[in-house]
Amino acid sequence: MGLIGMKAHQMVYTFDEADPDNVKLLGGKGAGLCLMMQQGLPVPPGIIITTEVCRMFYEAGEKLPDGLMDEVRVKMKYIEEKTGKKFGDPENPLLVSVRSGAPVSMPGMMDTVLNLGINDVIVKGLAKQMRDERAAYDAYRRFLQMFGRIVLGIDEKLFNEVFEEVKRKYDAKTDAELDVEGLKEVVEKFKEIIKREYGELIEDPWRQLELAIKAVFKSWNSPRAVFYRKAHNITPDIADGTAVCIVAMVFGNIGETSGTGVVFSRNPATGENELYGEFLETAQGEDVVAGIRTPRPISELKRINPKLYEELYAGAKLLERIKKEVQDIEFTVERGKIYFLQTRNGKLGPIARVKTVVDMVKEGILTKEEALLRVSPNHVIQLLYPRIDTSVKVSPIASGLPSSPGAVSGMVVFTADEAVEWSKQGKRVILVREETKPDDVHGMYASVGILTSRGGMTSHAAVVARAIGRPCVVGCEDIVIDYDNKLFRVKGKDIVVREGEYITIDGFSGNVYLGIVPTVEPRIPLELEELLSWADEFRRLGVRANADIPEDAEIARKFGAEGIGLLRTERMFRALDRLEVFRSVILSSDADDRRRNLEKLIPLLKKDFIEILKVMNGLPVIIRLFDPPLHEFLPKESELMSEIMNLKLEGKFEEAAEKEKLLKRVSMLTEANPMMGHRGVRVGVVYPEIYMAQAKAIFEAVAELIKDGYDIKVSVMIPQVSDVKELIYVKEHAVDVAHRDVESKYGIKVPYKYGTMIEVVRACLTADEIARVAEFFSFGTNDLTQAVYTFSRDDAEAKFLPKYLELGILEFNPFETIDVKGVGKLMKMCVEEARRVRKDIEIGICGEHGGDPKSIEFCHKIGLDYVSASPYRILVARLAAAHAALKEKGLKLSEY
Amino acid sequence: MGLIGMKAHQMVYTFDEADPDNVKLLGGKGAGLCLMMQQGLPVPPGIIITTEVCRMFYEAGEKLPDGLMDEVRVKMKYIEEKTGKKFGDPENPLLVSVRSGAPVSMPGMMDTVLNLGINDVIVKGLAKQMRDERAAYDAYRRFLQMFGRIVLGIDEKLFNEVFEEVKRKYDAKTDAELDVEGLKEVVEKFKEIIKREYGELIEDPWRQLELAIKAVFKSWNSPRAVFYRKAHNITPDIADGTAVCIVAMVFGNIGETSGTGVVFSRNPATGENELYGEFLETAQGEDVVAGIRTPRPISELKRINPKLYEELYAGAKLLERIKKEVQDIEFTVERGKIYFLQTRNGKLGPIARVKTVVDMVKEGILTKEEALLRVSPNHVIQLLYPRIDTSVKVSPIASGLPSSPGAVSGMVVFTADEAVEWSKQGKRVILVREETKPDDVHGMYASVGILTSRGGMTSHAAVVARAIGRPCVVGCEDIVIDYDNKLFRVKGKDIVVREGEYITIDGFSGNVYLGIVPTVEPRIPLELEELLSWADEFRRLGVRANADIPEDAEIARKFGAEGIGLLRTERMFRALDRLEVFRSVILSSDADDRRRNLEKLIPLLKKDFIEILKVMNGLPVIIRLFDPPLHEFLPKESELMSEIMNLKLEGKFEEAAEKEKLLKRVSMLTEANPMMGHRGVRVGVVYPEIYMAQAKAIFEAVAELIKDGYDIKVSVMIPQVSDVKELIYVKEHAVDVAHRDVESKYGIKVPYKYGTMIEVVRACLTADEIARVAEFFSFGTNDLTQAVYTFSRDDAEAKFLPKYLELGILEFNPFETIDVKGVGKLMKMCVEEARRVRKDIEIGICGEHGGDPKSIEFCHKIGLDYVSASPYRILVARLAAAHAALKEKGLKLSEY
Repeated sequence: MGLIGMKAHQMVYTFDEADPDNVKLLGGKGAGLCLMMQQGLPVPPGIIITTEVCRMFYEAGEKLPDGLMDEVRVKMKYIEEKTGKKFGDPENPLLVSVRSGAPVSMPGMMDTVLNLGINDVIVKGLAKQMRDERAAYDAYRRFLQMFGRIVLGIDEKLFNEVFEEVKRKYDAKTDAELDVEGLKEVVEKFKEIIKREYGELIEDPWRQLELAIKAVFKSWNSPRAVFYRKAHNITPDIADGTAVCIVAMVFGNIGETSGTGVVFSRNPATGENELYGEFLETAQGEDVVAGIRTPRPISELKRINPKLYEELYAGAKLLERIKKEVQDIEFTVERGKIYFLQTRNGKLGPIARVKTVVDMVKEGILTKEEALLRVSPNHVIQLLYPRIDTSVKVSPIASGLPSSPGAVSGMVVFTADEAVEWSKQGKRVILVREETKPDDVHGMYASVGILTSRGGMTSHAAVVARAIGRPCVVGCEDIVIDYDNKLFRVKGKDIVVREGEYITIDGFSGNVYLGIVPTVEPRIPLELEELLSWADEFRRLGVRANADIPEDAEIARKFGAEGIGLLRTERMFRALDRLEVFRSVILSSDADDRRRNLEKLIPLLKKDFIEILKVMNGLPVIIRLFDPPLHEFLPKESELMSEIMNLKLEGKFEEAAEKEKLLKRVSMLTEANPMMGHRGVRVGVVYPEIYMAQAKAIFEAVAELIKDGYDIKVSVMIPQVSDVKELIYVKEHAVDVAHRDVESKYGIKVPYKYGTMIEVVRACLTADEIARVAEFFSFGTNDLTQAVYTFSRDDAEAKFLPKYLELGILEFNPFETIDVKGVGKLMKMCVEEARRVRKDIEIGICGEHGGDPKSIEFCHKIGLDYVSASPYRILVARLAAAHAALKEKGLKLSEY
Repeated sequence: MGLIGMKAHQMVYTFDEADPDNVKLLGGKGAGLCLMMQQGLPVPPGIIITTEVCRMFYEAGEKLPDGLMDEVRVKMKYIEEKTGKKFGDPENPLLVSVRSGAPVSMPGMMDTVLNLGINDVIVKGLAKQMRDERAAYDAYRRFLQMFGRIVLGIDEKLFNEVFEEVKRKYDAKTDAELDVEGLKEVVEKFKEIIKREYGELIEDPWRQLELAIKAVFKSWNSPRAVFYRKAHNITPDIADGTAVCIVAMVFGNIGETSGTGVVFSRNPATGENELYGEFLETAQGEDVVAGIRTPRPISELKRINPKLYEELYAGAKLLERIKKEVQDIEFTVERGKIYFLQTRNGKLGPIARVKTVVDMVKEGILTKEEALLRVSPNHVIQLLYPRIDTSVKVSPIASGLPSSPGAVSGMVVFTADEAVEWSKQGKRVILVREETKPDDVHGMYASVGILTSRGGMTSHAAVVARAIGRPCVVGCEDIVIDYDNKLFRVKGKDIVVREGEYITIDGFSGNVYLGIVPTVEPRIPLELEELLSWADEFRRLGVRANADIPEDAEIARKFGAEGIGLLRTERMFRALDRLEVFRSVILSSDADDRRRNLEKLIPLLKKDFIEILKVMNGLPVIIRLFDPPLHEFLPKESELMSEIMNLKLEGKFEEAAEKEKLLKRVSMLTEANPMMGHRGVRVGVVYPEIYMAQAKAIFEAVAELIKDGYDIKVSVMIPQVSDVKELIYVKEHAVDVAHRDVESKYGIKVPYKYGTMIEVVRACLTADEIARVAEFFSFGTNDLTQAVYTFSRDDAEAKFLPKYLELGILEFNPFETIDVKGVGKLMKMCVEEARRVRKDIEIGICGEHGGDPKSIEFCHKIGLDYVSASPYRILVARLAAAHAALKEKGLKLSEY
């Protein structure tokens, strides 16, 4: 395409002319400034160089595009007119800030230069203009330090040392106590540093401006900015370059009627509807951020200057109403006049996030739909884990990537073997490694948390920690581990943490703290219940719980579960009073023997069923019959071998011989691949007595509860079905037999539904046949995923899955989120085939994916009837199900 | 539906009026008789009661339909007219045989009564008519015995005892030596038996006839007939009832110019084009069958009575030409006149089957297509195993169901443990059990053959024997096992076989022989090569071989393989001189260490590749890179534990500690489900060095051979791929790297193709993506079947698959024949998706199914390019592939 086809884009916009909704072009900061300006709020005038220019800068090999500076010069006139000052004019100087501003917030990642347009001559004019010589020199020294560091790349330490030295000389405890003479001396010394380190002083304001613009663009690709974007999955389609805002300076450092502050339109921790924030008198913005002086709470401003407070409050509320989000605002007061310098959506804690959207609905700011779409499932998840107590003020010593949720304290250990050793002694340990490997998995199990200095969200440590439910922080590059001396140091800080010392890690923020930091146990705020009741109005998917014991069923009901989608019956055989009997069932010589032994278990099983079914009175309960391979209930081969070895070493040969007999039986039952072995319905077919005993216990429980007036809705679910004939066989030879027996014994009708797990590939492929017999399907997506990939979750996650994620061969862990291309394709096929044969067949999902938001959205899309999740995940599922329904209507989730 | 809607079917047909092609209605015997009659061959006249009547008989609760006997009476006139005799007329009596005849041959399973229509009065007229009193009484005593046993249900032993007694009294060594006085005494005594046992004598010929018809119908559902049909998979759509033939008797027992015989139109063992059979003078047909007297070879008839021989020969050849099959003919000569009594397709040995069809093509009887369709893959399979030497005359002591091919001799043992024990001592044993169970599998492995007294073709013993390749006879109900005394008896025979005695079992016929019966080693007849060259003309599917060593490749090439479809590379690491090195590769601490160790293996691997590639000069060879989990190459956990135990018991604690270290590493590598673990491309991704070493060895081999003037067509195949990115990764990081290195080292182009096994479900589901990278696919249907069913072959076949087959939950073993509904559906989907993206993608199959005829037909249907089978199965595959193509044209396989 020739030049003729090219359109000359406008590269620079004034705050008055740009469209505040075009965040992608203007960056978040720029768009916010335009908005405020156009809404009539007091904003220092300014202009924006667009993100497009940033891309052009990189395309041209880090060169500013031709004509850019000309356009800047033209637009600068706008600022000059508005302020009545002139850039570079010693008589009436205009100073500007040069700020970065990407389309998404990347806090602290990119650079800003304040007070630009100053030099030895101009500072004098500024002093006059300000009527405050000290403030002028304060601005000058700040400029020199910032410009020196950011634009010229000079080590900041040099400036700080000099500054501290001068303060000592003048006996100034704080920056504010340093008088103008001191500041002049600082300025001179700063200039020397720059000349020495950079070779020259940049005195021309326009050269300052050009270099600062370049520096801001360059900061977009600084290693830490690149890392941040990668870690937060900010891809070019979301943000591809930063804008540059050039804004007229206002000064918070001119005496006591000036100051600066940051404020949230609501409390970002609690969600209370009050201004929340702090301000600092006689200071520029960076002082607040840097925490050099202690600011005062914003509530004091109300007392000191109610008019100013009112103006701030009104502005904040106006912005909140327009943006429909809590606003995080920076402001400066120059000689009693307030200026809004920045507004952006506030980052809220999970409780605040929930409370504010519920309140905003009540205030008429948000619709219920909007409120729902502003809370992510991740916020709800955060409410389910222990969190750092934000009421306690502590600073992290280091920070990495939050890769598995929860906050936890423990003693530092540096090897997996030590983790195991120490945990055996009852100690709570946090395993600290540069990175973890498959060999470390036993140590990860033994730890309460994991911290690594390398690796990303999909590193081995991260994947395994999520899989086994341990809080985890990875890629914490601030720490340097010294394995030999069993300690780690924190970079740039004089902190050493030795083996056995306590640390606390926060799997939500990625922060690492020294010692034991108090954590808050999960609490479900009332507003969440209200929000989720709205979610229930919008969602189409039902939400049920996976629950095996009455306690879980109670929680699930409380959290809004509409039934039990999966009641596993295995643990009923594992309890101590049953295991021995069940072992004798397994080792029985024939069916009669087996039946006799099972008979003893039926009353115990019945009791279990009665307890949990009572809790779920009125709601459907799906009970899955026995699933695991039988040898799981016998001692392990290797354990028996050790025992035999020890007995022999002790000379107890007779006992050893006994054990050897058992070992022989166990060896025969042991399978090369138990997951693909004799389990599920395969056990039910070969030993129908087992299913019959379970069915009997279930139906007797139901019969007794019905007699007691309960409303029981029970479904019997068969696992691992690969062919409809299996389903028919165990119905005819076990379930129906038990059912007839029980009905005739109790003399009443015992209603039940009969269906199957869909967790075998062949069941999906022959869903039409299976649906002729099954009244309901429930996807077991964990097993299905294993079968579709032919790899087992445990082996994969411990051994090669992290590598796969790291290399990008897998884009996500298919055991966390449904693999739509493979597993999902099969599921969709299955649903369609089944519904073709039995239109009203009830289809749900009871794999762990049932609690994963993305997977829930997929389940909604393919028309499942419900998802079943672990009790706490019910809350997540209700919200995610509503999101899925709203998205279908074309609504979008907010970016959180 | 009222009577008005019913159509009165014709229930009885004469030989002249029925359609000889309607075998289903007339039964095989009836249709043959009609054919011969209508072709002008001398056949005694007769009529047929159709198979429909048999069904009516059962529908009415074992009652003959109304009007049947009336219709029989009318039709009997036809026989009377043709013979000039009259049924029941003492002056000129017509005797008839009443014969069963099902649509498919069920030899010996159903009943026949000869000489019916006789009594004390009629026998006298018969004597006159025959001009042979002895023959008349001989016929009478035969009738009484057959009628008594078959129709009246009297124990045959009673008759036999009396007959032997009288023979002794008259000093007659053979039946024929017994004179008329003796026979009269036999008749009297037989009548007494009947009166005593049944209560009355049935003297009325018409009552005799009616009862005989009923008896024949009833024999259709005798337990042994039912069992036979089940064992041979004869379902109601194939044969649903027997016909009854009523045929005028001709007598082979009237003096020396009479006789009877059976003859094949060609030699059923060798296929030589000569009459083959035997005849017996002065005898009725049953004498030949019963083997009471020794018949003479048919060649002698040529000498004795050339005219008769000529007539027989001409008739046989006429029938052969019409039926296009070798005919198995029964005939009787009455006073020099020959009668054809039965013709049916001869059961031929595999060599004869192949030779006859090839000869018949040359004789113009068959087209090539017809010839191909008359040989089943099973015939070819039989040629691949040792068979009983048919030139040695031995009689089986018992017979069961042939359930796994091959003939083998061994010493009898009765428990699995003994089998293991004895085989360790170098003995060849045959495991004899009532039935086998999962606990017996180790003993089955230790045996050369398996014999069971119970169970069908899908019993545990049968399934496992086929899976592990041991000849097997099951359901041999003739034997009674006495475990306590370690022996078995043969029912009805005075034979006892004790532990340690030799028997021979024939997995083709189901026969069991005493002692060591000589077997013939497999031999491929020349005619098979000719036949298969015709198969090659018709088949569309290519046929390749699975071969890992040059010896197998040579055989495969000789048998017509068009390339190697699967060259597994695992064994190259297992050889003794490599295993230690490879173990050190596995235990390497890092990639560099691994690479160094692998470097040592490359020259050895290259040598292997050169050897086999040479053999396949000019033909394509697909080499699969490393597939199994790495820990397969390390000692087993349990073995190590035993070793450690022993070392400790011996006080060798240091050595034990060494082993314990190794044990720890092994434990870490060990997986819960190795089949679903770290294997195949997953190893290639995590340790690309391994694939790179293999690729290097391959490409160097190819380069050197090309330099030597060979024409090498090599393909590199990646196993266990679940996502296209795996395929891309190992190409970029291993295969292509090696390829570049080798090309630059040798300075020549090294052409190769890159593709993948399709053995993971997800690969099928994402075939479109994978086909963008893979130039060829090869289905690994063994693993695919395992994944689709989520059960592993070993565990399933040993543990629950036999039960599934027995219960009919599975109709066949999906590891033998492709499960079209599940696995096949995925394969079809995969082929379609792949071809959509890459039209010319080469798709084959290299799982064991590639040698299974039904599966080959399926592969043809879904459009695969080739099947790859083990070298010997190549012959089977070529034929099956031709069958698939011919069937597609609407042609049908003969029933063999």
